[in-house]
Amino acid sequence: MSARHFVKYTFLKMDPAWRREPAEAREQDKREFAAACEDFADGHLLQTFSLVGTRGDVELLLLAEAENLDRIHEFHVVLAQSGLMRWAQIPYSFLGMRKASEYSAEERIVPRGLRGRYAFVYPFVKSREWYALPAQERWRIMQRHIEVGREYAGVDNHTIYSFGLDDQEFVVAFDTDDVGTFLDLVQRLRTTEASSYTVRDTPSFTCIAMSLERALNALDGEPVALAAALPS
Amino acid sequence: MSARHFVKYTFLKMDPAWRREPAEAREQDKREFAAACEDFADGHLLQTFSLVGTRGDVELLLLAEAENLDRIHEFHVVLAQSGLMRWAQIPYSFLGMRKASEYSAEERIVPRGLRGRYAFVYPFVKSREWYALPAQERWRIMQRHIEVGREYAGVDNHTIYSFGLDDQEFVVAFDTDDVGTFLDLVQRLRTTEASSYTVRDTPSFTCIAMSLERALNALDGEPVALAAALPS
Amino acid sequence: MSARHFVKYTFLKMDPAWRREPAEAREQDKREFAAACEDFADGHLLQTFSLVGTRGDVELLLLAEAENLDRIHEFHVVLAQSGLMRWAQIPYSFLGMRKASEYSAEERIVPRGLRGRYAFVYPFVKSREWYALPAQERWRIMQRHIEVGREYAGVDNHTIYSFGLDDQEFVVAFDTDDVGTFLDLVQRLRTTEASSYTVRDTPSFTCIAMSLERALNALDGEPVALAAALPS
Amino acid sequence: MSARHFVKYTFLKMDPAWRREPAEAREQDKREFAAACEDFADGHLLQTFSLVGTRGDVELLLLAEAENLDRIHEFHVVLAQSGLMRWAQIPYSFLGMRKASEYSAEERIVPRGLRGRYAFVYPFVKSREWYALPAQERWRIMQRHIEVGREYAGVDNHTIYSFGLDDQEFVVAFDTDDVGTFLDLVQRLRTTEASSYTVRDTPSFTCIAMSLERALNALDGEPVALAAALPS
Amino acid sequence: MSARHFVKYTFLKMDPAWRREPAEAREQDKREFAAACEDFADGHLLQTFSLVGTRGDVELLLLAEAENLDRIHEFHVVLAQSGLMRWAQIPYSFLGMRKASEYSAEERIVPRGLRGRYAFVYPFVKSREWYALPAQERWRIMQRHIEVGREYAGVDNHTIYSFGLDDQEFVVAFDTDDVGTFLDLVQRLRTTEASSYTVRDTPSFTCIAMSLERALNALDGEPVALAAALPS
Repeated sequence: MSARHFVKYTFLKMDPAWRREPAEAREQDKREFAAACEDFADGHLLQTFSLVGTRGDVELLLLAEAENLDRIHEFHVVLAQSGLMRWAQIPYSFLGMRKASEYSAEERIVPRGLRGRYAFVYPFVKSREWYALPAQERWRIMQRHIEVGREYAGVDNHTIYSFGLDDQEFVVAFDTDDVGTFLDLVQRLRTTEASSYTVRDTPSFTCIAMSLERALNALDGEPVALAAALPS
Repeated sequence: MSARHFVKYTFLKMDPAWRREPAEAREQDKREFAAACEDFADGHLLQTFSLVGTRGDVELLLLAEAENLDRIHEFHVVLAQSGLMRWAQIPYSFLGMRKASEYSAEERIVPRGLRGRYAFVYPFVKSREWYALPAQERWRIMQRHIEVGREYAGVDNHTIYSFGLDDQEFVVAFDTDDVGTFLDLVQRLRTTEASSYTVRDTPSFTCIAMSLERALNALDGEPVALAAALPS
Repeated sequence: MSARHFVKYTFLKMDPAWRREPAEAREQDKREFAAACEDFADGHLLQTFSLVGTRGDVELLLLAEAENLDRIHEFHVVLAQSGLMRWAQIPYSFLGMRKASEYSAEERIVPRGLRGRYAFVYPFVKSREWYALPAQERWRIMQRHIEVGREYAGVDNHTIYSFGLDDQEFVVAFDTDDVGTFLDLVQRLRTTEASSYTVRDTPSFTCIAMSLERALNALDGEPVALAAALPS
Repeated sequence: MSARHFVKYTFLKMDPAWRREPAEAREQDKREFAAACEDFADGHLLQTFSLVGTRGDVELLLLAEAENLDRIHEFHVVLAQSGLMRWAQIPYSFLGMRKASEYSAEERIVPRGLRGRYAFVYPFVKSREWYALPAQERWRIMQRHIEVGREYAGVDNHTIYSFGLDDQEFVVAFDTDDVGTFLDLVQRLRTTEASSYTVRDTPSFTCIAMSLERALNALDGEPVALAAALPS
Repeated sequence: MSARHFVKYTFLKMDPAWRREPAEAREQDKREFAAACEDFADGHLLQTFSLVGTRGDVELLLLAEAENLDRIHEFHVVLAQSGLMRWAQIPYSFLGMRKASEYSAEERIVPRGLRGRYAFVYPFVKSREWYALPAQERWRIMQRHIEVGREYAGVDNHTIYSFGLDDQEFVVAFDTDDVGTFLDLVQRLRTTEASSYTVRDTPSFTCIAMSLERALNALDGEPVALAAALPS
């Protein structure tokens, strides 16, 4: 059990006033933020996504994974020191842990990054009616749900568990290179029996995978070369 | 499938403090924003609407369409560079894709702008009871819904799909020259069977179609001529 | 149909920082706002109410009526030019149209201002169960509702329609000189059958009718004489 | 009927930036606020409570009573002139009127202040199912509710009516010297039949009765003597 | 009964602008805040937790316990005097009292701090259907719930009562050294009968126990030695 990792989704939104700061100050702010990320990425999974153009309430997603909560905490303390966080809010934040599913043989404990060009992330809560069903009944319903998912190739599921740790029960993430196929899958899943037990599956974030350098430069449109930027 | 386009609704609200900036600064801010729009509009569908006077929480709507998500992203990165976005928030943002309807033969894949003087836009979510109905039953119910719509001439429907991409299932838009007829239609549709499966259809935005130049000048009431403004 | 007018409720809230501006600046801000109002009031219905002391989230209500949406838009563009709107938010905004009721013979198409010393305004949404009832059944239920209203003299109803134009279905307004009678009426109406089909009837605004001059001066307590202020 | 008074609960929250102002400025801000209160308290019921330490969203409660709405309005206009309101928001505001209860012979029309050391205030809305019950049935259910209340000595009820005037139906207030007894009473009342008809009874405010001087000084912890401060 | 203590959870969030202040100013702000805490901790239970990295909306939790409400009030007045509170908001605040449970023989009246390395806190509201059950039936359901809890060693429950004092009925807290075991417990409890009576159990806060010095330094990442910092 001790091997189960923590996974953290941190969504950032810049104060528009930051864009009124001098270009050099913004460049420095980005460099400090990137340095904090590089430090953490040395030994931990860290991925970056841009939401500029896909939503209005967040602009950057950091997806971090660590062996314990204290390491996640320390990473965010170092981030808070960077100039960028002097102008940023964290409108959404999801904390969870890896855990094997009772419905799927899929490997979920081993750290594994999102591989597609796009990621879709949402907090997920099921109704208490769902949990009141016999385990065998839940298993049957989920098998059908999983079967439908298998019909849509190239869409990969990543689900972590948040029971008691955060406001949702699960953080669900999918990655894919083909947005249209993912949209078709989600619409198709609306008709499964499992779907009727959903209480909450929003907000739903469309995230574009890119290097930290590109994701940071998307914040103000200024192309600054960040020497040791994380690989995408 | 690869031909399905992305459609993005971006609603802007200016910080009232922007109106305290000198007139020349505001003029420059608008010019930079217009330049970003012109760049995108060269080869892509881009329409502008004003919401000054129809709502209190947003003032300008950009409706952009592109062949992939990355082009939508790039457009918003360039927008973020403009002076205007140093004083703007994006209180609402809807992302979706074109997709053929299972209930209507109407052509929905081909890019098509809103043609009326007024547009009405809302995010739309149906109940899970709806999706639990047999496909044939849903088809029957929607035919009656569509028939009622046909009785109201001059109101054109534009619906895009957001399943998994954003917080809603659909973004519904109507365009018309006659607001009263649209109001009568919506009131009439409340009594259809389809209507009882609605979970969410707000916020509901009344948008006035106009050139980017007019829509930008409506933000502070200052009539600035923007050389290469987009045609209405 | 073209004769149906648009009605707009615009609720304003000043940034507390505005009260830290010099008195002359605030006086100028009010004069510019009043000038915009006078311009519109020349040929259009425009009424002003203060909410200072009745609510905490809004301070001033403008009730404007015009023959088309573009005139409403233009009025708000001119308002945005005034100094006052450089420090104001619009926390609530309701847009609707006049329309004859299917349940009442009362004249609702002809422009008609609120006459009482107090106005009570709220957005109104009925349940889909209501709209699923046969028209005859809805008519029967509404007759009883209207009868109860007639027992309370001196309370006048003004209802406009917002289907598809805004987040509510109706904007309901009552005017009266006697607040207590209105309160008694609303409590009494809770027991009618019609009441059980209400989904939303808040926020509920208590508005005090007064001249624009008095309503503007209530914002900061500074008695500035506005030469051409609107009559109450 | 004309004798029924208006009661107003105004909850204030200071901008944290106010605490960065010089001590003399803050002292002056408090004096002006106190002067406005003294003026109103001369002839009207006005009570002050602190919420510093009991909640995070409000810090001060003014409870004002007047014979008409215009006097409540004027009081808030004068408050707005004070320096304190240049840094304050009103996150919650409840307006209502005194009215005799149909379930209790208790005197509710005569102006009566809260006497205990602590007051508990919440907006209250009942379900439409409640109002659909026969009056006799509602009377029976309320008698049992009132009986339970009588078992808890030293807790006094003050309820005003807001139907149509504000977002709630009632503003319920209790005063007591013994917080634990009040908590026990509320927990006990959860099991009465009346309780099942509650739609909304939050936010629930714990208020500490104190003189205006003490309540103002609790805002920034600076002990300023306010000459003519209201008695507690 | 008079022995029942008050327990207060105060969650803080710094304005990002605070991080733009000079290092010496921030150091001074922390020292003043620490001094206020030390003063209260002399004779009262006071514990500190960091939420940097676990949530985006709060950063620091103070858990204070006192024999009466006035002492809780005074503590927050002194806190408000510190430089730190000139830049802080209190996005969440929970007030409650110790009280013996009717379902468990566990000692809950005696002041007792959280001992684990991690604490999990959430406001809790049960449905009115729960309270309508016979007491004996509620007792039976809770015994099963408690039995499940006992299967997960090393997770300790701390529940206080808020009926009438705050927006929730209970504030539930668990402490543990093993986050994974707690997550497993919460997921397991979803299937108990008691769980179906839950109306609200969010927001759910993951809190990392640490000394005040460390928790304050986590706010801006600057390691300042606070002489008389509270022991963890």
